[in-house]
Parts: sequence; structure tokens; C-alpha cells
Amino acid sequence: MKRFSLNQATTKHWPLPDLVNGCVEAGVTGVGLWREEVQAYGVERTAALVRDAGLAVTSLCRGGFFQEPGWQDENRRALDEAATLGAPSLVLVSGGLPPGSRDLDAARAHVGRAVGTLVPHAQDVGVQLAIEPLHPMFGSDRCVVSTLKQALDLASPYPSEAVGVVIDTYHLWWDDTVWDQITRAGRENRISCFQAADWVTPLPAGVLLGRGLPGTGCVELRRFREAVDAAGYTGPVEVEVFAENVWSRPGREVLDETIQRYLTHVA
Amino acid sequence: MKRFSLNQATTKHWPLPDLVNGCVEAGVTGVGLWREEVQAYGVERTAALVRDAGLAVTSLCRGGFFQEPGWQDENRRALDEAATLGAPSLVLVSGGLPPGSRDLDAARAHVGRAVGTLVPHAQDVGVQLAIEPLHPMFGSDRCVVSTLKQALDLASPYPSEAVGVVIDTYHLWWDDTVWDQITRAGRENRISCFQAADWVTPLPAGVLLGRGLPGTGCVELRRFREAVDAAGYTGPVEVEVFAENVWSRPGREVLDETIQRYLTHVA
Repeated sequence: MKRFSLNQATTKHWPLPDLVNGCVEAGVTGVGLWREEVQAYGVERTAALVRDAGLAVTSLCRGGFFQEPGWQDENRRALDEAATLGAPSLVLVSGGLPPGSRDLDAARAHVGRAVGTLVPHAQDVGVQLAIEPLHPMFGSDRCVVSTLKQALDLASPYPSEAVGVVIDTYHLWWDDTVWDQITRAGRENRISCFQAADWVTPLPAGVLLGRGLPGTGCVELRRFREAVDAAGYTGPVEVEVFAENVWSRPGREVLDETIQRYLTHVA
Repeated sequence: MKRFSLNQATTKHWPLPDLVNGCVEAGVTGVGLWREEVQAYGVERTAALVRDAGLAVTSLCRGGFFQEPGWQDENRRALDEAATLGAPSLVLVSGGLPPGSRDLDAARAHVGRAVGTLVPHAQDVGVQLAIEPLHPMFGSDRCVVSTLKQALDLASPYPSEAVGVVIDTYHLWWDDTVWDQITRAGRENRISCFQAADWVTPLPAGVLLGRGLPGTGCVELRRFREAVDAAGYTGPVEVEVFAENVWSRPGREVLDETIQRYLTHVA
């Protein structure tokens, strides 16, 4: 249990103070937070809430979306928020193709350069930029970084304390090259965060909210966890599930099931 | 226009005789056919219909689904049908994970062995088995072969006249390794068929029927066509679009738009 972290997206509608209390009661020691919810409650106020409860913030989601106007200021603010919360990393979802563009290579190259411009500020505030590859089904409209290899290649020009990657089972389970790339990620000291969710079908319209709690789908979750461990990762294991049929349930009930499923299928 | 082929899936509800007449009227010389529709009309009868109209059958969709009981007999029948139709290749969609399984590596290895068992019959009837990688979003329930590299690796133990691959833009557009693999596919003489469809979002529920006609989405279609040409491919270019909003329109109207879009965005 000491590595388990509840990513806030799993219990999206659970108010932050209730989530923090629920985690403490359940013996959870880490939470992954989301900017929208943190901003709504107040960044400093959230930082005090989790600190007073003895919880670690294991990551802040999310920065990125580098094709949107104002991405540079927005990501600097996100880094500042992560620092205030004591989060070791800011998860970056790169964004999709610019409007009307079909140039995927150019969009990916832009992500690498954009991350580079944020490196000095990330170093100043002591927060690692964590590039997250998303499943290729999000490649046009949400994240042009589709594989762990791409994420590591984009990170490679920069120091590992400033730029890492997120390994999320939901996005990478289909990729037979992922095992070698996990080893590489460990060797290059770039594993910022490990996130677990299961793959279930049929996918819903829009495909964003179709994830499953651990053990409900087909992902070799324990194999992934053992692979990141073998690569030298000793950090938190966040469970992050976006699903309407999970969100509609009481937060504490979801947390308890998530912990049980984590212990059975991931730990 | 001489390489253009209408895959029947694009005009799913167009009765076969009307489709054949429409193609002849529009100057189309090739069609890709589907087993269900061919069987409903009669295999020999379909063969006569297209032959008398002077149309080439550019591929037969589909065999595969190697996790289903009876796959071996079913695929032998599919090869026989392809031979009767004069189709040079049988498109193989591998099928997903066996029920309850999470072992993707084993499922992929099984596909390679299953294809191998069909090689003698494919050689006997003179039809190439064409392994089609599908987008990773289909990886669990429809096709465990997700990349062109995987398809080529699975094909590699067998002679290229017996086992090739299908290159479909819809499934492969997101993969930055695809360009090198297209070159490899040409070098290894394994490009059975080239299919074009565009990627449009948001994806519908179930994600099967969300494709776009050429030019409606974000795929670098001409880059793909030029890449297969540069790899030495001189065969047909099938346009294959599964989409409710295309199927609901009159077949001839769809064909005319498809030809125009092919000329503008692919040829």
C-alpha cells in the first residue's frame, strides 16, 4: 500500500476535502491532483489541506497542449502550481495537431522544442516535466506523442531531472516495443510517474471515458509494474481511471474497490 | 484512375449488381469485395458478374479471426472464394485476444502460426494471405496485430508470394516507424494491397464506423501513396471507408465523391 496513489481523476466528483479525508481513513499516502479541481479549491489552500493530512502529491495533471495560444505562460503557471503543491512532476499531454494541419512530424517536433523552452523554469521551481504518451487513438486531437519511444526521444536533449516521462498502462499496453523502452526509460532515469488503468471495450463515443479499474480489462498490469520496478523505478503507482460508470459512484466506495483491485492486480 | 479501386465496404448498402454497373459507368476498373456480400449474392455468380463487367477484384475481405473455433476451415473456404473471384489476396484481420486472456504476446504468436498453416492451401489456389495491421484501438477485440512491423515480422517465415501485408492509412497514420516499414515491405515484396481512408474525430461509440472519405481528416494520404510507390508497389489503391454517414447516402453519389477525393488527395 505504501506506493499506492489515488489519482483524483478516478473519483472526479469527490470534493477535495472528502477525498483527502477518505484517503487518510483508508491508509492512502499519496494523491495525484488535477489543476482544474485544485484551482477551484485554491492552490495554496489545497497545498495546506494535503500537507496537514500528511498526504504526498505524487503528480499534477496536467500541462501541455502546446498547439494552443498562450501555452508557454499556461505551462509556467502549471509548474508554479506543482511546486506549491510539492508535486515532483507536471504531467504533460502534448495536445493534437494544430487546426487544419496534417503534419504530425512537425507537431511532434514542436512538442520537443516547447518542452525545451520550459526546462529553465522547471529547474528553477524543482518540478520535472513529465511527457505522457497517449494511446494512438488520441493522436490527432489530444496528444501527438503516441509511444514511449517518442516520449523518450523528445525528452532526450534535456537533463533527466528536468524532463521525464509518464508510463500509463492504458495508453501503452498494445505496444510490443514498450518493454524495451521501459528498460531504456529507467536507464535514462526518466520515469516520472507510473499510472495504471485497464483497457475495456467497447469504447464509448469520444473514447475518453472508457477506462476500467484494474483487473476489469485485458492489460497485463502486474507485468507493467514489475517492468518499471526492474527498470529501477521506486515511485508511486497512481491508479487513474476516467469512466462515467466509476465517476457516478460514491468516492469512498470507488477508493476502497480501487485499493483492493490494486493489491490484487498491480502490487 | 487506373489504380483506383472501390472497396465495397465504402458503399455497404449498394446492391452488388448496382455497384458493378456504377463502377463501369464511372470508369472504375477494380473493386475490393467482402465475403458476406459475395456469399449473399453467390460466389460463382459474383465472379461472373464482375468478370463480365470487366472489373478486377483487387482483394477479398476478410479472413483471419484466428481465436475463433473453426478458423482453419473458415479461412480455407475464404481462400477458395478469393480464388474463384480471381482476387490476388485474402485480407486477414487477426482477431483479438481469446476470451478471458490478457496474453497479447501469445495471441500474436498464434496468428503467425495460424497463417503458416494456411500457406500450403494459399499456394495451391494462388491467393496471397495478406496480414492487415489494425489501429491499436482494436488491439483487444478485433486485431492483435497493431503495427506494420508486427505484420511483417509475422509474415517473415513464409514465402512472399504466399504471405503479404495490407497497408491501410487509417490504421497506420499515427506511427512514425511506418515509413521505414513501408520501405521494408517493398524490399521484402510483401505489399499485397494499399487501402486509403481518413482519420476523423470524434470517434463514434465502438470506434468501428468512424472513418472519413479521403481529404476529410488528418492523414497524409498522398505521402502514404508516394511511400508505397517508392517501395515498388504498383498495385491498386482501394478506398475503404466504414462510416454510417457515408453508408446512408446513395452508392453512386458516394462513388463519384470518392473518386474526386481520391484524385485530389491520394493520386
